[in-house]
Amino acid sequence: MTLIVINPNSSETVTAGIDQAVEPLRRFGTPIRCITLTEGPPGIESQLQADLTIAPMLRLAAAQPDASGYVIACFGDPGLHALRDQTTLPVLGIQESAVMTALTLGQRFGVIAILPQSIPRHLRAFGAMGVSDRLAGDRALGLSVADLADPARSRNAMVATAKDLRDRDGADVLIMGCAGMAQYREVLEGETDLPVVEPTQAAVAMALGHIALKLSKRGNEHA
Amino acid sequence: MTLIVINPNSSETVTAGIDQAVEPLRRFGTPIRCITLTEGPPGIESQLQADLTIAPMLRLAAAQPDASGYVIACFGDPGLHALRDQTTLPVLGIQESAVMTALTLGQRFGVIAILPQSIPRHLRAFGAMGVSDRLAGDRALGLSVADLADPARSRNAMVATAKDLRDRDGADVLIMGCAGMAQYREVLEGETDLPVVEPTQAAVAMALGHIALKLSKRGNEHA
Amino acid sequence: MTLIVINPNSSETVTAGIDQAVEPLRRFGTPIRCITLTEGPPGIESQLQADLTIAPMLRLAAAQPDASGYVIACFGDPGLHALRDQTTLPVLGIQESAVMTALTLGQRFGVIAILPQSIPRHLRAFGAMGVSDRLAGDRALGLSVADLADPARSRNAMVATAKDLRDRDGADVLIMGCAGMAQYREVLEGETDLPVVEPTQAAVAMALGHIALKLSKRGNEHA
Amino acid sequence: MTLIVINPNSSETVTAGIDQAVEPLRRFGTPIRCITLTEGPPGIESQLQADLTIAPMLRLAAAQPDASGYVIACFGDPGLHALRDQTTLPVLGIQESAVMTALTLGQRFGVIAILPQSIPRHLRAFGAMGVSDRLAGDRALGLSVADLADPARSRNAMVATAKDLRDRDGADVLIMGCAGMAQYREVLEGETDLPVVEPTQAAVAMALGHIALKLSKRGNEHA
Amino acid sequence: MTLIVINPNSSETVTAGIDQAVEPLRRFGTPIRCITLTEGPPGIESQLQADLTIAPMLRLAAAQPDASGYVIACFGDPGLHALRDQTTLPVLGIQESAVMTALTLGQRFGVIAILPQSIPRHLRAFGAMGVSDRLAGDRALGLSVADLADPARSRNAMVATAKDLRDRDGADVLIMGCAGMAQYREVLEGETDLPVVEPTQAAVAMALGHIALKLSKRGNEHA
Amino acid sequence: MTLIVINPNSSETVTAGIDQAVEPLRRFGTPIRCITLTEGPPGIESQLQADLTIAPMLRLAAAQPDASGYVIACFGDPGLHALRDQTTLPVLGIQESAVMTALTLGQRFGVIAILPQSIPRHLRAFGAMGVSDRLAGDRALGLSVADLADPARSRNAMVATAKDLRDRDGADVLIMGCAGMAQYREVLEGETDLPVVEPTQAAVAMALGHIALKLSKRGNEHA
Repeated sequence: MTLIVINPNSSETVTAGIDQAVEPLRRFGTPIRCITLTEGPPGIESQLQADLTIAPMLRLAAAQPDASGYVIACFGDPGLHALRDQTTLPVLGIQESAVMTALTLGQRFGVIAILPQSIPRHLRAFGAMGVSDRLAGDRALGLSVADLADPARSRNAMVATAKDLRDRDGADVLIMGCAGMAQYREVLEGETDLPVVEPTQAAVAMALGHIALKLSKRGNEHA
Repeated sequence: MTLIVINPNSSETVTAGIDQAVEPLRRFGTPIRCITLTEGPPGIESQLQADLTIAPMLRLAAAQPDASGYVIACFGDPGLHALRDQTTLPVLGIQESAVMTALTLGQRFGVIAILPQSIPRHLRAFGAMGVSDRLAGDRALGLSVADLADPARSRNAMVATAKDLRDRDGADVLIMGCAGMAQYREVLEGETDLPVVEPTQAAVAMALGHIALKLSKRGNEHA
Repeated sequence: MTLIVINPNSSETVTAGIDQAVEPLRRFGTPIRCITLTEGPPGIESQLQADLTIAPMLRLAAAQPDASGYVIACFGDPGLHALRDQTTLPVLGIQESAVMTALTLGQRFGVIAILPQSIPRHLRAFGAMGVSDRLAGDRALGLSVADLADPARSRNAMVATAKDLRDRDGADVLIMGCAGMAQYREVLEGETDLPVVEPTQAAVAMALGHIALKLSKRGNEHA
Repeated sequence: MTLIVINPNSSETVTAGIDQAVEPLRRFGTPIRCITLTEGPPGIESQLQADLTIAPMLRLAAAQPDASGYVIACFGDPGLHALRDQTTLPVLGIQESAVMTALTLGQRFGVIAILPQSIPRHLRAFGAMGVSDRLAGDRALGLSVADLADPARSRNAMVATAKDLRDRDGADVLIMGCAGMAQYREVLEGETDLPVVEPTQAAVAMALGHIALKLSKRGNEHA
Repeated sequence: MTLIVINPNSSETVTAGIDQAVEPLRRFGTPIRCITLTEGPPGIESQLQADLTIAPMLRLAAAQPDASGYVIACFGDPGLHALRDQTTLPVLGIQESAVMTALTLGQRFGVIAILPQSIPRHLRAFGAMGVSDRLAGDRALGLSVADLADPARSRNAMVATAKDLRDRDGADVLIMGCAGMAQYREVLEGETDLPVVEPTQAAVAMALGHIALKLSKRGNEHA
Repeated sequence: MTLIVINPNSSETVTAGIDQAVEPLRRFGTPIRCITLTEGPPGIESQLQADLTIAPMLRLAAAQPDASGYVIACFGDPGLHALRDQTTLPVLGIQESAVMTALTLGQRFGVIAILPQSIPRHLRAFGAMGVSDRLAGDRALGLSVADLADPARSRNAMVATAKDLRDRDGADVLIMGCAGMAQYREVLEGETDLPVVEPTQAAVAMALGHIALKLSKRGNEHA
C-alpha cells in the first residue's frame, strides 16, 4: 500500500521537487508516490484556480487503487475536506500539516508566501484552523513571475522575507508557503537560525504516522 | 442590470422558495433573477458536493451578461472567493451575509443546521470569518431525509431546534442554515420571540446595497 | 415611513455630508431623513463626549413619529444598544455596519481614525463585536485640528494613512473611521485600489434591508 | 483624600450594602465614601438605563473635592471610560475589576446575572475586555422582580445558579453580577466550594492599590 | 540513535502500556526506548506533582547518550519547554502532539480527562497553544481512584465520557487525556464512530517525523 | 500574619529592589517580607531555569509559618499553580497580576522584556491567560549582559523600547517585564506619558486585597 502525494498543479518540476523533498521519509517503509494533476494549471495563484483543481483531483485520487493515504500538495489545501468526504483513508493537506508541525517548533509562525494575493487565502485558512493567535506574519516575496524563475533572486527574496518575519514580526518558526521549494529549506535555516517547515515534508510525515496508527475519519458518507 | 441569485443545487423548488423569499427586496428597484444550477446535486450535503458545484457555478455566473452582482445561495458559500476572483462585480454568499446581518441583531447567534455533518463545515467558515466568539451554538434538526419531506415535521423540528439554541445555548438571534426555507421564518420568530435571519434575504439585501454603493473588490486577476 | 439618520454632533456640515453620501440609496424607495443633534458637541472626540450625546439622542429619536428605523451616525455608535432598548424598530450604528460590510469585501480591515485617542475606543468596540482577528490596523491621520480644516491636507493625510494600512498592516479593505467624509471615498479607492467603506452608507444600506425584511429585535422592555 | 464609590442607582439600600461589603478594606487606611446617584433609577436593568446614568454620574463625581479615586459600582460599568476621560485620578469599574480579580482565582469564570436581559450586555463587555475565552458561562437567576424581594428565594436561586455554573459550565471561580448582594458571598462559597468575587470588593481593592501606587491614565483631555 | 520516551510517573505499568501503544511505529526504523522516571509520583494528579518531575526528568533525559529525540509522556507536558532549552534534539510533548494531530482529524476536539482537577491545567495549555476555539469540551471520568483500578469501570466511564463529548459538546475527534490507556482506543472508536487520538502514539509519530526531517529548535542556550 | 514575597533568583540586589518597590503598600497594614531563593540562579533567563526554581521555592514557601499569602516575584510566574496546589492561602504571580492591572489602565498593553528569548515564554503565558487580543507588543531591550549592568544604558534602552511599544505597536499601557527595576518606573512614565505597571507592585497590591477579602482557591488537594 502506498501514500499518494498529489501535486494539483501541472508542473512536473514541482512534482519532482516534492518527490525529492520527501526522500528522507521513505525509510519509514511505506512507498510514497508523487503524482501530477495534468488538468491543473501550471501554478495555483488564486482561490479560483485552486477550486477548479478539486474535481479532477478527486478523480485522480479515486484512481489510485493501492492508496493507503493521500497528501494534497498545494499550500491552500484545495479539496482537503472534499477528499476526506470521498475516502476513509487518511488525507492530509500541506498547509494544515505545516501549521500543526510549526506549532511544535516555535510560539509564533511566519509564512513565506510566493504571491501577495495568496495571503488573504492563507488567513482564511488559519482562521478556520483556529490558530490565528499563533501567526506572527505572512509576507510575500515581492517578486515578479520573471524574477521567480531566477533561482538566485528567489533564494535572496526568500532569505530576506524570512528575516523580516523573524525581525519585524517576531516569528520563531517559519513555514515555506508553497510546495516545490524544499531545496531552499537548508539555506533559510542557516540564514535565520530558525526551524523551517517545508510543507510537503510535514504532511507526508504526518500522513505516514496516521497510516501506521490507522488515524482517519471513520464512516464515509460518499464512498 | 440585474442581481443574479444562483441556487447551486438542482432543485427548482428551492429556487422558487428563494425567489419568493427575496420578494420584499424587489421594491429596491434592481431586478433580481434567481437561477438554478442544473449540474448541481438535488441537495448539497457535504463539502465534496459543495466543491463540485464550483466549476459549473462559475460558468453559469459568467453566462449572465446583464449581471450587476451575484449571490451564491447555498449555506456554505461554495465558490464565494473563486467567483470574487472571476469578477469585479459584488459577490455575496448567503452564509457570510447571514452572519454579518445577525451580528447587528443580537450578541450570540444560533444556527439551525439541516444535517449534523454540515456543522463542522459551518464552524470552519465561522473560524475563517473570525466570528467564533459570537457563536452561541449550531444544532441540527435531527430529522431523516424522509422526515424532512414532511412540512409539519420540518416545522416542528425547526421550532424545537430554535428553542434549544435560545434556551440551552443562549442565542439571541437565529440563522436558518439553508436556503429555501424562508416560509418558516415567521413561525420561528413567533415561537422564539427572537429575530431570525433567512440567509438568502440577508445576502440579497447586502448585495443590493453593494451594487448601489459600488462596493466590491477592485482589480481583477482573472477577468 | 422614513429612515431617520441622526448625526449626534451639532455640525450641520457633517449632516449635509451624510445626506449627500446616502443619496445613491434613496432610489430604494424609503425616504431617508438626516437630522442633527443640536445638543451634541461640534465634534465627538472622546468617550465622554460620545456618552453625553446619548440622552438627547434618545429623546430626538423618540420625537420622530414617522420613523421606520434609525441610523446613529457617529463612528463609536454612541447609544446604539440604548436605542435598541427604546424601540423595536431597526437600529443600526455606522461603526458596526461598516465593519460587517467590510468583512464581506476583504479579509483584514484597516480603519482610518481621525484622532489617535479614538483608537482605544474603536478597539473596545471591535472586541465587543468579536472581530478583532479580522482587524489589520487602526491608524490616525496625525493632523492637528487646524490641519483637519484644510481639505487638501485632510485628503493627503487620508491617502497616506490608507496606504500605510494597506502596505504596513496588510489591510485589503478600508473603513473611514468617521461620518461626513464620504467625499474622499473615491480618491481613497483610486489611490489604494482597495474597496473603501464609508460608514454612513454602509449603515443606511443595512438599515433599508432590515426595514424591508422586518429584521429587528423583537419585544421591547422600555417602549 | 478619599476613594469615592458611586452607586449609580438610587437605592440607598444598595449603597448601604456596598458600604458594608467594603468594610474589610477600610483598614488599608484610605477613607472610602459610598454615595448614591439620586438621579439614577431604582435599579439598572438595561443598557438604556445604564447609559442615562452617565451624565449625572459624571457631575456627581466632579463634585467630590476630596476624591483620590473612583469606583463605579454598577455591574456594566456605565460611564467607566467617560469618567477616565474626565479625570486623571484612578477610576475602576466593578465589572472590569471583578473579572480581573477572578482571572487570578480560577481558569474559567462564571457570572451570576440577576436578569437574563443583562447577559448580552455582559458578553459585549467581556469581548471588549478580550477575555471571552476565559468565560465559562453567564446565567441569570430566573426570578421575577417579586421573587427578588424575597431574601430566601434570592439566596436559593443564587446558590442554584452558582452550582449550574460550576457543574454544567465548568466554572472554577464565580462572579456576582451585581452590586449590593455581598451578604450572599459567604453562603455561595460554602455551597460551591469555589472562590466567589463580589465586584464592589474587587474594585475597591484594586482602586486602593492604584491610589497607593499612583496608577492611572496620564494626561487629561477634558479636565 | 534512539527516540527516548520518558514516562514522568513511576508506574512501570504505565511505561509498559506506552511501550505497547507505540509498537506500530517501530517499523519506521528508529529504535524507541520507553523509560520510567523512578523519582516521579505513582501518578501525576496536579500541577504541583507535574512541576516536581521536571528537575529529575531533565537529568534522566541528559543521561541518555544515544538519544536522537525525546517524548515527554505525561498529558500536561511537564518540562516540555525546559527540555527544549536543554537540548537541540527534537522534543515533543504528548498533549501538544495529541492536539496537533487531532486538529487534522476533526473540527472540534474533545478531551477525556481522568480527574476533574486536571481540566483547568488542560485549559491553560490549550490557551497557550492558541487553540481554544477548536475545543469542544474537556470532561472527567467521574471515577474514584478505587474505580479507576477496575478495568471494566474505567472502560465504561471512558465510553460514557466519550459519548458525552460527542453528543453534548459536539466533538468530532477525541483525545485520551492521559498516557497508558491505549488499550481502550479501539473500543472508544468503535463505540463513538469518531477518530480517537492516543497521545503517546501521536507524539512518537511526530517525533519520528521531526527526527527524520531534522526539525527542531536551532541553537541551544543551555547545552 | 505576613505577605511573603519570594524572589526566585538568588540576587539580594533584586530582592532589595522589590522590597523598596512595594514600600508604598506597607501602609495598608499587612507586613510584607521579601525573601530570596538562595538555591535560585543569579537571574532567570529561560524556561529551564524558571522550572528548576519551583521545587526549592515550594519548600521555601512552606517554611514561612507566619504567611498569610504569597507573591512569586519572577516575571514568568514559575510555580504559580504549583504553589496554589500546595496552599489555600492567596498566591499571586507578578506576571499575571501585572497583566490584570494593566488591563484596567489601557486597551493594549506593551511589555518591556529584558531578553529576546523570554518573549515566547511571555506569549505562552498571555495565551494561557486568554488575553492575547489585548497585547500590543512584547519587545526586548536589545542589550548584552554587560550593557545591562550599566544603569544609564539600561535606562536608555528601557525608554527607547517603551517608546517603540507606544509608537510602533500602539500600546497605551506598559508593563515592565521583570522584577527589580522599579526605580525606572517613574522615568518611563515621564518619557512616554503612559501608565507603567511595575509587576511586583501590582502583585503585592492584589495580594493584599485578596488577603483582606479572604479570596483564594478553596479546598486543598496537597496540604
